[in-house]
Amino acid sequence: MTKNGKSLNMTNWNFANRAAKLNPSVLREILKVTEQPGIISFAGGLPSAETFPVREFKLACDAVLEKNAHSALQYAASEGFQELREQISETLSWKPDPNQILITTGSQQGLDLIAKLFIDKGSKILVESPTYLGALQAFSIMEPDIVCVESNADDLNISDLDKHRKNAKFIYLLPNFQNPTGKTISENGREIISNYARERNLLIIEDNPYGELWFDTPPPISLTARNPEGCIYLGSLSKILAPGLRLGFLVAPPTVYPKLLQAKQAADLHSPIFNQRIASEVMKGEFLSNHIPMIRSLYKSQCKAMIAALNREMSDLPVTWNAPAGGMFIWLSLPNYMNATTLLPNAIKRGVAFVPGESFYTKNPELHNLRLSFVTASKSEIDTGIALLAQTIREEFQNSIK
Amino acid sequence: MTKNGKSLNMTNWNFANRAAKLNPSVLREILKVTEQPGIISFAGGLPSAETFPVREFKLACDAVLEKNAHSALQYAASEGFQELREQISETLSWKPDPNQILITTGSQQGLDLIAKLFIDKGSKILVESPTYLGALQAFSIMEPDIVCVESNADDLNISDLDKHRKNAKFIYLLPNFQNPTGKTISENGREIISNYARERNLLIIEDNPYGELWFDTPPPISLTARNPEGCIYLGSLSKILAPGLRLGFLVAPPTVYPKLLQAKQAADLHSPIFNQRIASEVMKGEFLSNHIPMIRSLYKSQCKAMIAALNREMSDLPVTWNAPAGGMFIWLSLPNYMNATTLLPNAIKRGVAFVPGESFYTKNPELHNLRLSFVTASKSEIDTGIALLAQTIREEFQNSIK
Repeated sequence: MTKNGKSLNMTNWNFANRAAKLNPSVLREILKVTEQPGIISFAGGLPSAETFPVREFKLACDAVLEKNAHSALQYAASEGFQELREQISETLSWKPDPNQILITTGSQQGLDLIAKLFIDKGSKILVESPTYLGALQAFSIMEPDIVCVESNADDLNISDLDKHRKNAKFIYLLPNFQNPTGKTISENGREIISNYARERNLLIIEDNPYGELWFDTPPPISLTARNPEGCIYLGSLSKILAPGLRLGFLVAPPTVYPKLLQAKQAADLHSPIFNQRIASEVMKGEFLSNHIPMIRSLYKSQCKAMIAALNREMSDLPVTWNAPAGGMFIWLSLPNYMNATTLLPNAIKRGVAFVPGESFYTKNPELHNLRLSFVTASKSEIDTGIALLAQTIREEFQNSIK
Repeated sequence: MTKNGKSLNMTNWNFANRAAKLNPSVLREILKVTEQPGIISFAGGLPSAETFPVREFKLACDAVLEKNAHSALQYAASEGFQELREQISETLSWKPDPNQILITTGSQQGLDLIAKLFIDKGSKILVESPTYLGALQAFSIMEPDIVCVESNADDLNISDLDKHRKNAKFIYLLPNFQNPTGKTISENGREIISNYARERNLLIIEDNPYGELWFDTPPPISLTARNPEGCIYLGSLSKILAPGLRLGFLVAPPTVYPKLLQAKQAADLHSPIFNQRIASEVMKGEFLSNHIPMIRSLYKSQCKAMIAALNREMSDLPVTWNAPAGGMFIWLSLPNYMNATTLLPNAIKRGVAFVPGESFYTKNPELHNLRLSFVTASKSEIDTGIALLAQTIREEFQNSIK
């Protein structure tokens, strides 16, 4: 009722059609539950806070506010801070022209800009299945027809790709330590995809947030390095510096860059220049070449601890898991008659959380998989949490065979 | 040519239809020119760097990294930092529930989220004419039919609004010290719009980046305060703290908030929590109630200096300008047979820059207006720059009457 006594129906807003694609993120809702004290969470894809270079950030804040406060706090160029773009180019194997690098507000924003630039309602786009949930969300808003391409082991199934690629706007791939499966596309698999895409003029969106987090050997060189003109590359500072800065980047060929830049301007004018200058300051000199190996070594030992715990606690159970060569995630498969989504509440009751695999599929979800992050919990939490998870699965399994 | 000898056509990317709306921002291109040394620029809408609370930012960085480094550098909630949402609520006259506040990456992002949520291809939306260029850019990507509503002096022409409002998704308004015209909708004008929109269930998007920057008296209360259920309010910390943090916010009714939140998650997961905690730290206690009056007083004196210079240098010319009651901009009108866009290169040759009014129209641009920002240049630059602008206009005028 308004003050003049008329009854109004303000709940029935006239949303755009795409609003139907805007639904609560299951993953976010899960993460809220897992933030409860007392829950050991393997759910979130949160870097270990231990790795955040707090001292270096302090020094960088001081330096930036001492030397460049006015520029660091003012509006800035949409392209990003030139020095940071040059530093990022240096970290990439194919040393792209810094002018092809666009600083984004997290690499998530790169997905949003790409969706805007390429996807009309009904446009066909290709993804792996399962794939990164955030990409599905960013793409879905533009109402594409999302088509899943099958994989053979870790590599893409090229004959399935060939079946689907006609009129596809792009294929979205996470070749290194994929989220959620942890798998990595082989050298041979990359060469095949790269040649295939080049010959058919199929744009590749290569998302690489985890590439630096290898354990023993670097992954094969990126798809973009093999054919920069045919790929848009997405990178992130979240996993090598800290996610709270929200700094990512994309590298795009000159044919695409100006349009992405214009979409960026319309989206948020530019990413925080204060943060860009801080990141640039922290990355000066030899910082990353000391810092990243420390993260690698920590995550490797955490992964090893989780696999040891899985071997210890679950060897009598009909479950399988992979041994990723880097990144943050292990992909665990229950027998296919079991359901990870309905397992979760029981796991949470026991005090442990994971992400049900269902969240990472756009259609025909495989319900019996789940994602375990090994980077956020401590090793003793890993031991306890995997034991609790084993108990939960064992109980569920025993109920299922009764 | 690729390494296997095939010639490829990678320039002909298959963009979405909306890519046609992604064109270089005229304003951005102008700003690049005006960044040349030796040019006095009245073009950019850049807050005076003098007002940035550098010392407070330093203390805040230290405090945040001392006490809350791990949370400040980690992933965070898409809604925004709770304490900051509470502080923002306190600054707003109608004290909205902090749970209705969404922290955005600059208020520009609020426009992007609203465009996604409400605009289908061809949807009718209503704007003032001229209006904020960044809003036109953010909305245009979703391919609306943008309809301009006429104004009577500073207020909206309600009979023109009535002619157009059928099936409109929303009306976008900047009631305080509008960008680009500097004009403010009167108390009476607000009451009429507010009642009109409430009775017809027309959603109002109220953009208020400049509302705190009044000179002598606060502007009439906001449209949202009059009817929070019927408005989405956009606010910014760029003009009262610093733009380089990229922090803005929106306030939305419960019927709309969850969808905007989901669009926010897909766009960039969340705005930098590091920046949110710093802003919250700076805003603690009585900071704003001392800081904002300092900005008001500076901008008032700069505006006065520009109007004095205009009176001194242009009283013999057939030009008019307004005296804004706050904000950052003066709107100057040449005789309507003159053209501000073609005037600009001549002004730049003399060493002074402005934004031609043309940029702020979506159709039927009035070519004889131009926007002057009085906040970035110093008072002596204002004196010199307005004298140079007067010479440029005088020359053009004399040529035109020859």
